Amino acid sequence: MLKKTLQEGQETTDSALERLLPAATQHPTSIHQAMRHSVFAGGKRLRPILCIEAGRMVAGPQLAGTLPAGIEEVGAALEMLHTYSLIHDDLPALDNDDLRRGRPTCHKAFGEAIAILAGDALQTQAYEVLARLQCPAEVRVRIIEEIARGTGTIDGMIGGQVVDLEAEHTKPDVKMLEYIHRSKTAALITASVVSGGLYAGASEDAVAHLRKFGQSIGLAFQIVDDVLDVTQTSEQLGKTAGKDLTSEKATYPALFGIEESIRKADSLVQEAGEALHSFGGRAEILKSLAHFLVERKK
Amino acid sequence: MLKKTLQEGQETTDSALERLLPAATQHPTSIHQAMRHSVFAGGKRLRPILCIEAGRMVAGPQLAGTLPAGIEEVGAALEMLHTYSLIHDDLPALDNDDLRRGRPTCHKAFGEAIAILAGDALQTQAYEVLARLQCPAEVRVRIIEEIARGTGTIDGMIGGQVVDLEAEHTKPDVKMLEYIHRSKTAALITASVVSGGLYAGASEDAVAHLRKFGQSIGLAFQIVDDVLDVTQTSEQLGKTAGKDLTSEKATYPALFGIEESIRKADSLVQEAGEALHSFGGRAEILKSLAHFLVERKK
Repeated sequence: MLKKTLQEGQETTDSALERLLPAATQHPTSIHQAMRHSVFAGGKRLRPILCIEAGRMVAGPQLAGTLPAGIEEVGAALEMLHTYSLIHDDLPALDNDDLRRGRPTCHKAFGEAIAILAGDALQTQAYEVLARLQCPAEVRVRIIEEIARGTGTIDGMIGGQVVDLEAEHTKPDVKMLEYIHRSKTAALITASVVSGGLYAGASEDAVAHLRKFGQSIGLAFQIVDDVLDVTQTSEQLGKTAGKDLTSEKATYPALFGIEESIRKADSLVQEAGEALHSFGGRAEILKSLAHFLVERKK
Repeated sequence: MLKKTLQEGQETTDSALERLLPAATQHPTSIHQAMRHSVFAGGKRLRPILCIEAGRMVAGPQLAGTLPAGIEEVGAALEMLHTYSLIHDDLPALDNDDLRRGRPTCHKAFGEAIAILAGDALQTQAYEVLARLQCPAEVRVRIIEEIARGTGTIDGMIGGQVVDLEAEHTKPDVKMLEYIHRSKTAALITASVVSGGLYAGASEDAVAHLRKFGQSIGLAFQIVDDVLDVTQTSEQLGKTAGKDLTSEKATYPALFGIEESIRKADSLVQEAGEALHSFGGRAEILKSLAHFLVERKK
């Protein structure tokens, strides 16, 4: 069941990305090839899948298994934003990573200048896609605002990256670590879940529940990411393992140890499930996704 | 008259930027200081002023000298986008410039990592501002789409930067040069004029005239920029002069000489004025702005 959700979600997202990104043959080709190199590098499409499934849950049983029409375009925009952040994060001035999802990072393949511009362009393209979604303009601007905040500097993705950078080579403290996790990863995951709900017409009440769910699984996701960095090999992860330790990053395992970190992640998944109580049986898929996030091996 | 337009436009824009950017004391402070360092570096605010004046012209005489309420927020978003492109353009991997508007560039003052993220964040913040404009949601999404295209990879700002980079050290050709000028600079100037018109409720006809005006002055602006790079000193420009020659960039003066370049710019300003024919006397300010763009000395 979950396997089918993951596979179908990935296919739906990939075909929307294929349609919404400029072709590799479109002039100027280098930037479009660079954008596609990083977008089509075998990502799990977790943010789009969370968005789509949140939308499906909110839309309810009348859809009879189909998706809210066009919701995969929200997912594609989220994946463009996630990919832009990875491209810039991998740059020599930031994490200086050569390998991402088992392939050369964007700047390794296309040079630093094109990698910087490809990241910029994926952000731009995401907002163009969001401005043209197949839902009322009122909903589109609300989704854009939600996603811009989730990726911004105050409690959003960029804010998390900044503090993460600045935390290197300083003794990690719990408050700083929680800010990093909440902002760097959980904020975009939360925006993914909330924007899927908004697209499907969620009430303010439903949005609040989705937000709580997103925050909990986002935090759990980052804790597990940090644990995997310590326990898995580069080959298993498809990216350089052990980077957090060598760069003395503020991580959950560094502060609380691996066992306590796993316990914390499990308890967050529990809380996430409880946040969806009011959706009853329709929340099953999102709940299984939450479990999947902490049980994954890469 | 024009002096007043420029000064008031600059003040209106600066005060909107002051309000719409996170405070320098807001956590995490380094990124907010970096964003403000580059945004408040004494820019002329030409794009916001063109946007505001296009809006004022379209809104017509019933405003009696006041502005369409809230239009300065469109201008502020345009300036954030312009500044993000300057920050990234100045990076070592791109133009590698130490000086911008007479001050250290963002990466010189804050380091490369923060400069990359500050550019990213200004783009994000611009879309958050646009999503919350004080005009109908239908108009907001149209403005977002217009601006995203104007700054994108196909005939937009990023596309122009890519071809500009790739044109270094190759013999400039007219077709490539025109693509660079049209995309790198003219596209965002056009989006500025068109979005101001849209904000004020322009008809499709009026939008088409504004688009033609924007394209002509945008092209003229870049030609003059290239001429100034050859004829002015670094001190006069507030940035490194003569860079185009040393990096063998494709420029109008390199291809046609200085006199022919100035003639071309003048003729484009003439065409721009004609595009506003249907607005009659209300077009006077935009026409003077067009003349100002080619007569400026920095």
